[in-house]
Amino acid sequence: MQLERIEKLLNVYRDGLLDDTLPFWFPGCIDTEHGGFMTARNRDGAIIDTDKCVWQQGRAAWLLSTLHNAVEPRQEWLDWARQGLDFMKRHCFDTDDRMFFQMTREGKPLRKRRYVFSEAFAAIALAAWSKATGDENAARQSIDLFRSFMRYANTPGLLPPKGIPETRATRGLAIPMITINIAQTLRENIGEVDFCTTEIDRCIGEIKTYFMKPDMECVLETVGSKGEFIDHYDGRTVNPGHAIEAAWFILHEARMRGNAPELIATGCQILDWMWERGWDRKYGGMLYFVDVKGYPVQEYWHDMKFWWPHNETIIATLLAHHLTGEEKYEQWHQLVHDWAYAHFPDPEYGEWYGYLHRDGRISTHAKGTMWKGPFHLPRMQLYCWKVLEEMKGSGTK
Amino acid sequence: MQLERIEKLLNVYRDGLLDDTLPFWFPGCIDTEHGGFMTARNRDGAIIDTDKCVWQQGRAAWLLSTLHNAVEPRQEWLDWARQGLDFMKRHCFDTDDRMFFQMTREGKPLRKRRYVFSEAFAAIALAAWSKATGDENAARQSIDLFRSFMRYANTPGLLPPKGIPETRATRGLAIPMITINIAQTLRENIGEVDFCTTEIDRCIGEIKTYFMKPDMECVLETVGSKGEFIDHYDGRTVNPGHAIEAAWFILHEARMRGNAPELIATGCQILDWMWERGWDRKYGGMLYFVDVKGYPVQEYWHDMKFWWPHNETIIATLLAHHLTGEEKYEQWHQLVHDWAYAHFPDPEYGEWYGYLHRDGRISTHAKGTMWKGPFHLPRMQLYCWKVLEEMKGSGTK
Repeated sequence: MQLERIEKLLNVYRDGLLDDTLPFWFPGCIDTEHGGFMTARNRDGAIIDTDKCVWQQGRAAWLLSTLHNAVEPRQEWLDWARQGLDFMKRHCFDTDDRMFFQMTREGKPLRKRRYVFSEAFAAIALAAWSKATGDENAARQSIDLFRSFMRYANTPGLLPPKGIPETRATRGLAIPMITINIAQTLRENIGEVDFCTTEIDRCIGEIKTYFMKPDMECVLETVGSKGEFIDHYDGRTVNPGHAIEAAWFILHEARMRGNAPELIATGCQILDWMWERGWDRKYGGMLYFVDVKGYPVQEYWHDMKFWWPHNETIIATLLAHHLTGEEKYEQWHQLVHDWAYAHFPDPEYGEWYGYLHRDGRISTHAKGTMWKGPFHLPRMQLYCWKVLEEMKGSGTK
Repeated sequence: MQLERIEKLLNVYRDGLLDDTLPFWFPGCIDTEHGGFMTARNRDGAIIDTDKCVWQQGRAAWLLSTLHNAVEPRQEWLDWARQGLDFMKRHCFDTDDRMFFQMTREGKPLRKRRYVFSEAFAAIALAAWSKATGDENAARQSIDLFRSFMRYANTPGLLPPKGIPETRATRGLAIPMITINIAQTLRENIGEVDFCTTEIDRCIGEIKTYFMKPDMECVLETVGSKGEFIDHYDGRTVNPGHAIEAAWFILHEARMRGNAPELIATGCQILDWMWERGWDRKYGGMLYFVDVKGYPVQEYWHDMKFWWPHNETIIATLLAHHLTGEEKYEQWHQLVHDWAYAHFPDPEYGEWYGYLHRDGRISTHAKGTMWKGPFHLPRMQLYCWKVLEEMKGSGTK
């Protein structure tokens, strides 16, 4: 990549993060009365639902603590992160060791889901917080939550299943993928090197063994318990942006291990396959779901363009280019970056819209929901900024 | 309505039912090996998923039995209906008295949901079958299933709740609405007049007491246990096509009771409010979800055009015109009929597409899924055909 382009992109991501994304969310989404973050926001940032999603408490606290660690120490970032962590600690744990999913503004539980992703995001928040503050209790809690997450996620029967596993047992890509991310975050912030690296290797192996299908040139989202292809709606439905998120976690792991060639090969293989599947040749942008055999997809929003698959694909293509020098990835990065920046940002009130129609028209003006908060976009901006700094420093072209 | 238009519409609905909708589904969707119906079908009718949705077994068996009762006695309709009923009886009941939601082709259970709609559709199927065949066992089973449905649907705590009712107890429009429809179907086919009419009155009262909000000019979809407005995403999200389905169940009740004026007023009030909410002034057609305060809707497919709200609105507007003679309803009927017939039918392979974008473009070519089968469209075609016959006979204008 030309130095000029590196510098231009670096400014887009850094300034976008510091001057646009962060001021949109903070301190406005902080509940000064009850603590925690209210992320359901209209186009202009007005709060349209005071309920609090537990995922967003952890994700936002992770982001703010990580900014303190990676950008510069700013007391206000820590003060804001503490709001989310305190709210979680006070309200978001059930009497078993599991966490809730959705809370009232005051902190009463509204919903608990059968998944353990609230725990995953709390774990990464506590890890980043412990590094930012030296809080050893937080580090211990983070490791405990990670162990609890793994126990629930990997012990069949411990969580109530969605289907009836005696008839058709399935496994999903989300569990090994998110495990890699938690383990990487704990290792970076707390330093549990052996434990985390073992888990990362195990999960990358699981993705290769069960989900990557060379004969289909595809990463599947849901497979049988032994990796069997399930030739029904659920088993055929793949989520390219989700697999590409896994791709960059693996490429990040390669980077952490001195550009390990095997990991680069695996990450790039996933990216290559899923770019082919997901990039919309008609309108540009990443399709949400596609059927691996080309049949119709049952989910209604299959052909919409969501913000987060674009964040993940922007990271993955930039990182693949950085690690391989291949021009193809620079071209893909430019394609997805340009499409995303032409359609998602709101020039008037800042931040990105989350949900576009296939052709890029806006489907909803909401900037935040129970699902969209300050996470994927600022994580992309921060990660790409730092990768570009490295590229600039190393003179990569 | 002019006689010429009555006759034209009557042909559209009758011929569409007999020459287009029915041949698309039957006998092709019948599993000659394991029994039951496979409704997941591509544009041309090819089966793309062999899993069987229990809802569709009951709905299709209801349709076929009802055609035998209402159109003409045809042995093949009964033979086909029996396929669904036998499959349900052999495979679809759990060891408690509840039914499953999704089965393998062979009849093994894949999923059981926390709702009791499988039971609702089995009850109406058995009722219509019992009338068609004189099978008294089926009539008893139908009544038992209806009682079981009501017990589960109306006893708090008996079914696992989605949320945490101690924090925010809710009630949904679907339960009283579908109860009216089951009770009407049992009364029509089995004749349990007092029992069913009492239930219908109770449910219409529930809709009026808890869900109809004159100050908002709206029927809410989800309210607090005492009918309180829930000013959060879930409580603000209304489903105009669903409320309009309730409207025509109530208008049908008026028709069954000699055009009872109070019931006509209630049904038309719902239709008037929800037409205002749901009719898309920009592109035409019925929006799927709207926010009662005009805020963004959280569900991704809020502005899509689904086939079934159009089926329900076509019935409701025609019936409202028939019962009141008001020109407004004839105009609305023409608007929604014309929009639907301009966008949903597939002239090449028959039947209707199910899922369009807001502007009427096709989102998926699938004709059938776990959710879309031979029900809403043929029910509309049959019901409107019969209403138009009545209008023709009575010289309504």
